[in-house]
Amino acid sequence: MDLFEKLLANRGPLGSHSHYAHGYFTFPKLEGEIAPRMTFRGKQVLTWSLNNYLGLANHPEVRKADADAAAEFGMALPMGARIMSGNSNNHERLENELAAFVQKEDAFLLNFGYQGVVSIIDALVDRHDVIVYDAESHACIIDGVRLHQGKRYVYQHNDIESLEKQLQRATRLTNETGGAILVITEGVFGMSGNLGKLQEIVALKEKYGFRLFIDDAHGFGTMGKTGAGTGEHLGVQDGIDIYFSTFAKSMASIGAFVASNEQVIEYLRYNMRSQTYAKSLPMTLVVGALKRLELLRTKPELKDNLWKVVNALQSGLREKGFNIGTTESCVTPVLLNGQIPDATALTLDLRENYNIFCSIVVYPVVPKDVIMLRLIPTAVHTLDDVAETIAAFEAISAKLDKGLYTKSSVTA
Amino acid sequence: MDLFEKLLANRGPLGSHSHYAHGYFTFPKLEGEIAPRMTFRGKQVLTWSLNNYLGLANHPEVRKADADAAAEFGMALPMGARIMSGNSNNHERLENELAAFVQKEDAFLLNFGYQGVVSIIDALVDRHDVIVYDAESHACIIDGVRLHQGKRYVYQHNDIESLEKQLQRATRLTNETGGAILVITEGVFGMSGNLGKLQEIVALKEKYGFRLFIDDAHGFGTMGKTGAGTGEHLGVQDGIDIYFSTFAKSMASIGAFVASNEQVIEYLRYNMRSQTYAKSLPMTLVVGALKRLELLRTKPELKDNLWKVVNALQSGLREKGFNIGTTESCVTPVLLNGQIPDATALTLDLRENYNIFCSIVVYPVVPKDVIMLRLIPTAVHTLDDVAETIAAFEAISAKLDKGLYTKSSVTA
Repeated sequence: MDLFEKLLANRGPLGSHSHYAHGYFTFPKLEGEIAPRMTFRGKQVLTWSLNNYLGLANHPEVRKADADAAAEFGMALPMGARIMSGNSNNHERLENELAAFVQKEDAFLLNFGYQGVVSIIDALVDRHDVIVYDAESHACIIDGVRLHQGKRYVYQHNDIESLEKQLQRATRLTNETGGAILVITEGVFGMSGNLGKLQEIVALKEKYGFRLFIDDAHGFGTMGKTGAGTGEHLGVQDGIDIYFSTFAKSMASIGAFVASNEQVIEYLRYNMRSQTYAKSLPMTLVVGALKRLELLRTKPELKDNLWKVVNALQSGLREKGFNIGTTESCVTPVLLNGQIPDATALTLDLRENYNIFCSIVVYPVVPKDVIMLRLIPTAVHTLDDVAETIAAFEAISAKLDKGLYTKSSVTA
Repeated sequence: MDLFEKLLANRGPLGSHSHYAHGYFTFPKLEGEIAPRMTFRGKQVLTWSLNNYLGLANHPEVRKADADAAAEFGMALPMGARIMSGNSNNHERLENELAAFVQKEDAFLLNFGYQGVVSIIDALVDRHDVIVYDAESHACIIDGVRLHQGKRYVYQHNDIESLEKQLQRATRLTNETGGAILVITEGVFGMSGNLGKLQEIVALKEKYGFRLFIDDAHGFGTMGKTGAGTGEHLGVQDGIDIYFSTFAKSMASIGAFVASNEQVIEYLRYNMRSQTYAKSLPMTLVVGALKRLELLRTKPELKDNLWKVVNALQSGLREKGFNIGTTESCVTPVLLNGQIPDATALTLDLRENYNIFCSIVVYPVVPKDVIMLRLIPTAVHTLDDVAETIAAFEAISAKLDKGLYTKSSVTA
């Protein structure tokens, strides 16, 4: 059979809706500076869909650092992989500062988070080892696990009983193979806002002797007293053996890092395929990350503002009777009852008539009769933004309950 | 067993030498602007190790475009994945211009090349399909193939007889499974400089009915009349079904793209995991890529200069009796006979006493008794640089032949 014919016969869960979704529900364009108010199809919308937690994307000191660095270094420098010709003092300085910030001995800077996670997992395990991981792990973790040649046991999301059952299986198997056990989960789950149960997981280390790898993409900068992440927040930062975060959320950039003890980082530095065989993070992004990290360290008011908005939004929604699930982080899901056509009409109404832009998540990410609207509060939202949003949600929720979206004539 | 103990017991082929190599042979720092003359450990060196083929890294128009874009957009915009909130007119414009440049219907911009290739392969095939690929394919292709749940048949590097044998096996199997065949190779192999035998491979398409995916990282911008790559150079651009290039070489940036027919690109846009679940290429890099592509199109003298340097270097080396293998591209390997300790002493001598910095490649990438010095000429090297380098190579080669490096006292 022809490969292209096969592909086009099944365009995938998102691709099969592209004929009406493209440019509106998928691949929308938010224009203007990154801020709570941006332009969508020529109209100003109140935006709750960007992971700009601390408001750094458009912070004047960040903008100046980015502009100055690009003027000084351009976007090409350095060229080549870190190991070959892409190293610099700034790369090493950022690694030292990141390690200190997350309370680890050393860190390795990564050219991109997604491929970074894939290669961390790939470098850590061999066919004799067993990976035990949370069922709701991010796609990059899943791709890393997919590369693993040994056994992988998945446990039900945040279910410690299920985890322990899988650890028992893993122990039996590694006793035979002579391999080791790697447990992988997240600090903050990006869809539900749930925290990984790190205290309970760390407590199992003594019994099962595994190592723990945490992807803390949404926790870094937002959780913990100093912003060092979910491990700090839960008092178990030391129990995290390998800590990862991207720069794509709180840091409002691209790139990522992994932190651990000195010897493990040295091992990773020399054994991660996506780093050994691909270009180093550009200097301008490294220098920009140094400035962002400085602001994380020196401006606790950014995180305080963020949580003021988070708390107002989450408690306001709860007071009005909304189901926001079990979030314990900034990620704020609003769970409504409805089918996909309702979701489409509701989102149109929200964007066109209430000028509110947020992400909408439907089956298969959530059950078939659930519509999830996902809000990401930031430090630069205001309490007025929160009030406006809650009022709009009350209005659309009432319409949804009345079935008004089911045969909706709302159009963009 | 403990995972960390296991890791540290075997530090990998490069990691096991890190105690003496780090900072010199591995993770060296080339300082200053990207140019033929840069600073290594405080001394000026003539550099042949950067994939800055067209000299765009430090081209004044590129530097201005990068600086202006960073001042206007910063490094955060847009936030989120392309499909969710990371789209823009500039992203779409660049896709259209790239597609036109490589003579394809459409293109999809990728946030990073390595994970881009992995996810292209992952998106194209399912368990019923068979991948047939060149044995010397880049690590990112190998990682993509490793994700494949169906059969993968590797053919000997550039060996058409071996390819055909694997295609016959693949045909028998897909006749049973109802799957399709994907052939993957490179336009220019980055180590040897060999071209993929694209004419011969395309000629087999009629007989075996496969689709062909080409990674042309080193061919884009350097090969073909217009710089459209190795397919153009060999007159078979139309026979390439899916064309990929990174921006990390000729374009002197990061990011990448994939080009094909409109329907396949639409399919990839909606089904590549590293793109759906990771942040979009920053606007500043997109605008910078538009400028670079404009220079590729409008300044053929860049490619002409490049090839003037390539031809002088390769013919000069050949005239002096050096073995430069079978390169037909800009990549210029120099193959010497010697063991790893010789290679170390020779590289030290070359860097410290002849002030020449190039990459050195040893076992297991080349056979045990071969030392490969790999030169990447660029449009901004001069014929004087070439002469100086050939003279230095004659000197070190004579020393190597006399066994002077075997018990060398050369020190850094």
